[in-house]
Amino acid sequence: MYRFQNDYSFGAHPAVLAALAETSMEGNAGYGADPYCQRAAGLIRDLCRCPQADVQFLVGGTQTNLTAIAAFLRPWEGVISAESGHINGHEAGAVEATGHKILAVPVGTDGKLTPAHLLPILKRHADPHLVKPRMVYLSDATESGTVYTKAELIALSDCCRQNGLLLFVDGARLGYALSSSANDLTLPDLAALTDAFYIGGTKNGALMGEALVISNPELQPDFFRIKKQLGGVLAKGWLLGVQFEALLNDGLYFTLARHANTMAERLQAGLRSLGYPMMSESTTNQIFPIVPDALLPKLDRLCTYEVWSKARVPEHTVIRLVTCFATEERDVTGLLAALGD
Amino acid sequence: MYRFQNDYSFGAHPAVLAALAETSMEGNAGYGADPYCQRAAGLIRDLCRCPQADVQFLVGGTQTNLTAIAAFLRPWEGVISAESGHINGHEAGAVEATGHKILAVPVGTDGKLTPAHLLPILKRHADPHLVKPRMVYLSDATESGTVYTKAELIALSDCCRQNGLLLFVDGARLGYALSSSANDLTLPDLAALTDAFYIGGTKNGALMGEALVISNPELQPDFFRIKKQLGGVLAKGWLLGVQFEALLNDGLYFTLARHANTMAERLQAGLRSLGYPMMSESTTNQIFPIVPDALLPKLDRLCTYEVWSKARVPEHTVIRLVTCFATEERDVTGLLAALGD
Amino acid sequence: MYRFQNDYSFGAHPAVLAALAETSMEGNAGYGADPYCQRAAGLIRDLCRCPQADVQFLVGGTQTNLTAIAAFLRPWEGVISAESGHINGHEAGAVEATGHKILAVPVGTDGKLTPAHLLPILKRHADPHLVKPRMVYLSDATESGTVYTKAELIALSDCCRQNGLLLFVDGARLGYALSSSANDLTLPDLAALTDAFYIGGTKNGALMGEALVISNPELQPDFFRIKKQLGGVLAKGWLLGVQFEALLNDGLYFTLARHANTMAERLQAGLRSLGYPMMSESTTNQIFPIVPDALLPKLDRLCTYEVWSKARVPEHTVIRLVTCFATEERDVTGLLAALGD
Amino acid sequence: MYRFQNDYSFGAHPAVLAALAETSMEGNAGYGADPYCQRAAGLIRDLCRCPQADVQFLVGGTQTNLTAIAAFLRPWEGVISAESGHINGHEAGAVEATGHKILAVPVGTDGKLTPAHLLPILKRHADPHLVKPRMVYLSDATESGTVYTKAELIALSDCCRQNGLLLFVDGARLGYALSSSANDLTLPDLAALTDAFYIGGTKNGALMGEALVISNPELQPDFFRIKKQLGGVLAKGWLLGVQFEALLNDGLYFTLARHANTMAERLQAGLRSLGYPMMSESTTNQIFPIVPDALLPKLDRLCTYEVWSKARVPEHTVIRLVTCFATEERDVTGLLAALGD
Repeated sequence: MYRFQNDYSFGAHPAVLAALAETSMEGNAGYGADPYCQRAAGLIRDLCRCPQADVQFLVGGTQTNLTAIAAFLRPWEGVISAESGHINGHEAGAVEATGHKILAVPVGTDGKLTPAHLLPILKRHADPHLVKPRMVYLSDATESGTVYTKAELIALSDCCRQNGLLLFVDGARLGYALSSSANDLTLPDLAALTDAFYIGGTKNGALMGEALVISNPELQPDFFRIKKQLGGVLAKGWLLGVQFEALLNDGLYFTLARHANTMAERLQAGLRSLGYPMMSESTTNQIFPIVPDALLPKLDRLCTYEVWSKARVPEHTVIRLVTCFATEERDVTGLLAALGD
Repeated sequence: MYRFQNDYSFGAHPAVLAALAETSMEGNAGYGADPYCQRAAGLIRDLCRCPQADVQFLVGGTQTNLTAIAAFLRPWEGVISAESGHINGHEAGAVEATGHKILAVPVGTDGKLTPAHLLPILKRHADPHLVKPRMVYLSDATESGTVYTKAELIALSDCCRQNGLLLFVDGARLGYALSSSANDLTLPDLAALTDAFYIGGTKNGALMGEALVISNPELQPDFFRIKKQLGGVLAKGWLLGVQFEALLNDGLYFTLARHANTMAERLQAGLRSLGYPMMSESTTNQIFPIVPDALLPKLDRLCTYEVWSKARVPEHTVIRLVTCFATEERDVTGLLAALGD
Repeated sequence: MYRFQNDYSFGAHPAVLAALAETSMEGNAGYGADPYCQRAAGLIRDLCRCPQADVQFLVGGTQTNLTAIAAFLRPWEGVISAESGHINGHEAGAVEATGHKILAVPVGTDGKLTPAHLLPILKRHADPHLVKPRMVYLSDATESGTVYTKAELIALSDCCRQNGLLLFVDGARLGYALSSSANDLTLPDLAALTDAFYIGGTKNGALMGEALVISNPELQPDFFRIKKQLGGVLAKGWLLGVQFEALLNDGLYFTLARHANTMAERLQAGLRSLGYPMMSESTTNQIFPIVPDALLPKLDRLCTYEVWSKARVPEHTVIRLVTCFATEERDVTGLLAALGD
Repeated sequence: MYRFQNDYSFGAHPAVLAALAETSMEGNAGYGADPYCQRAAGLIRDLCRCPQADVQFLVGGTQTNLTAIAAFLRPWEGVISAESGHINGHEAGAVEATGHKILAVPVGTDGKLTPAHLLPILKRHADPHLVKPRMVYLSDATESGTVYTKAELIALSDCCRQNGLLLFVDGARLGYALSSSANDLTLPDLAALTDAFYIGGTKNGALMGEALVISNPELQPDFFRIKKQLGGVLAKGWLLGVQFEALLNDGLYFTLARHANTMAERLQAGLRSLGYPMMSESTTNQIFPIVPDALLPKLDRLCTYEVWSKARVPEHTVIRLVTCFATEERDVTGLLAALGD
């Protein structure tokens, strides 16, 4: 079985595991007040060229999304998201459980928000009988495997700032986005154009961990308290600092992401050669082939994958194949060969 | 520096780390749907002789407390806790953030609740203008290092069942409690006498992880959904299953706890010999010496510890010293010798 | 100025006001524990032929919606509503503020939900990473002025019961619905086919007040506590009982609604004669003419109304005109005459 | 039966009822956007000499408390209250249901908070693992019938401002406090010394209604949205404006309160003459006689009252007797005479 189901099926990259083992018996302060978290945070501030950023480590993506949104919004404020956004359809109502309405917008198959999506919401919600739109949530890479260009993010950022909206980027797959062939964004761009974003570890080489970068100073006070309140403070907090230091110190994080992207690119090209179109133009580690339903039993024998949705073409299904740091060349060639038989 | 600040300053026991490393590149299903979590849950059901229990793995203690309480209570219901209970004073309002009032009761220095604490609350709260008491929360070991006897837990359990109260036991330090010289409770007792309790991994040999045992079938449906909603589902869920299997398979969990208790017992005895009384009669891994304030500067140079509270005796302070699996004999003898000089 | 802006611009029907004045200095028990509330509740149980119903009086519609939804759902459960539903677009995120996601469904211009809207949501939300659909919320009359037929409500009720969904009917305008020429539903039908619904007083003759009828016994316990908790218990609760008794005792409630419907029907017919089409086939007290934008300045001088939405036809607007117990024949003929000039 | 159970057993003062009747059929804008609310708000701003105040009308006390606290606090912030405070013991967990912990402080039988109560909480809660104290909630008159002096309120206000705490005064019985013989506070004092307070109508002459005065401009933005979200916006909002205008225009509000205070004072003096001591030194409309338990059956026949608590003296009970605008001289003399027999 070739494993393409997701990018969280394997543990950590060996270098990360080694760092965890080496530091295990040192004795470190709890709750993130340790030198590893401090160094990893410093490293991230440097990489973002954002010395004023508050860097907060959390365990997982849903936790990071709900904590940031609960921390940044007032009770009567809502968050605009693509209908396909992770917070809207995959987090069991986590945002609503903190009291906030998601203002979900239908977007195209590229999964991207644009200023044109925001303006009608702002107009309608000028009415004080509705929640006040206060944040735009987007993911880079998107749920469709695409990435935002610098021009697109600048347009969104400008629109947000002109309209009193915070911009928050879910970076669970940020490594893949920044390593994509279609990308022209940098970490300093993200820090400058958004109010907060995160660098996902769970899906790119770490056992677990997301590094939230809060560049807007107004959003920084007391973040630790709400992180604690919402169950997001890890007692052995240095476990997160150690992993991010191992991943970011010498660029391992981006090396792993580039590898996964390359594997996905080859798989996508090979599948296209075999005649399978794609739902979206992915340039990251998630690809979305459209296959005849009749192929699914064979696929079930060959590999792990996810059924994404029914395709518009009758009797066809969109599936999702995902690569990660653990994907090997032979997984790609093997699956393509088996499908080509 | 001798390290007695807490029981979450060291990583995982080497056997646990080894298990994590060995399984890292296997490829496992996400979100706890893996064979490790299934086996660890089965092991726990067996140890509890409770085949109907739902075992849910979570990352940390505050997260487990808030998720269980939010899952088990209706909005108008409150939870009774000792004023010194962890949920009341150390979790940044996590329970209230899920909408529930904590009905805090002053208790003695042993930190224990009894039926006599519950009845006046039940009487007063028969008034429907007040929240309805619906759960009793207690910790074993308590925040004072003491343990509940079987007779005490039976009395509480009976009182709860007669009054429509759920009984929930915070077991962040359950290993230490069950390994205490004063203990006569077993895991099957806990499963039978409570509605839910948890077996803490974070503070006894694991990197992180708490195993929540929901023995009351009425509380089991849909727990995964609220765990997801509140950010408590770990993407690489097998990391928790692997650790609990390594800890529980051959009794390592209890071996580690007994070791820590023994170290604490020796430290306590030694300190008493040096003339320092204790705030409580701890039989677990946390001890609470009362020391003259003038001793604190010396202590600061010798060891890590926590200031617990001002003592009733003027110019004296209650401090907390904590042992764990990583505490060594020489830490104990070394600190005692240095204090005896 | 002819007043057609809404059905809450006038106080109470004189008979209701008189009842309030007469009882003002009697001295009554607070919080609804008075004979007026008891009698009004009994009257409603009789009218609904539902002796087991719990009747709860609340002050307003948003309050009733949020309290019922918060009371009936568990934290991980969501409520299905038409996208145009009042809870989704007019209540400032009230439902989400209690922690629940609204699963909004686009519906036709008739504003009605059908089983066909529910089934895809149920299928998709079998995934435990999503909220569990647990309630269907609908309004009768709908936001479009239409009413549910008995066959339609039976189909929804059957679908709900087969799929573990509660059915909750927002009856802020129930009087108008039950008095509509298109209606074949009765109060006993509503009590039998739903789990809870309410009889709106605010918009039909009362100063304020909604009577929530909880026919499903499983949803009844402790409702008073959550009503208190959410700020919905009126200290002088008898004010609600007195008004509902005055309205329901001799059918005044339905007399007033029929009058308003008749006024709306005539206005609608007259506007159609003048060449204005309608957005929906309203049979109640809200009608939705589509008018050229160029007419709006004239309308502004003639009457109060609400701009509902842009019409699909360019340079046309859907407006809303609403009648109520205070609307007089001359308001209708006067506006029609002025528009016909 | 003499009626002394509470101050919300009678409807509205006749002048208030008359104003409601007169304006009933005018046709007014909904949701508080009417001239009555505007004029009443202006009147209140004038009486408070606080032109920048935002005046918001709500229906009831619990609703006002929960809405203000939810609006003013961030999720990780808590509110300090006397243990006997209304929000802590009489509102069914309303504050916690909005996510906020109440930091309850035991106070004396006078029910008053002082700076000495606040400082230990501030010190302990500097720890970010605890909620951040951010508001002080107090009631004037207190739950014990006492009033804050100007010196006391200045001391609290100074302490709050020096420590980043908001000061919020529950004025459900503010009329009685400001009309008390022990009072030296004015409305301008309250506006200047607090961040927000309210003028209670429900318990002093209105059918219902509380006027919240938000003098701190930072707390004003978007209050309407959260009021709507929490179900506190009355559709026929002018009902509140009309009542407050009738009560405040010519001082009726204070006339009614003085009358009730005088009745309570005479009752208290009479009871003392009969040998009954008081739990507290009330100078407002609630008094708390301590009576032998053996007297209770006789009291049950003579009057309505509330059992407040067991007295410290064995076999004695603290009861509460309350006067209001509807209390007559003969109620007082009648009860005293009957008790003196």
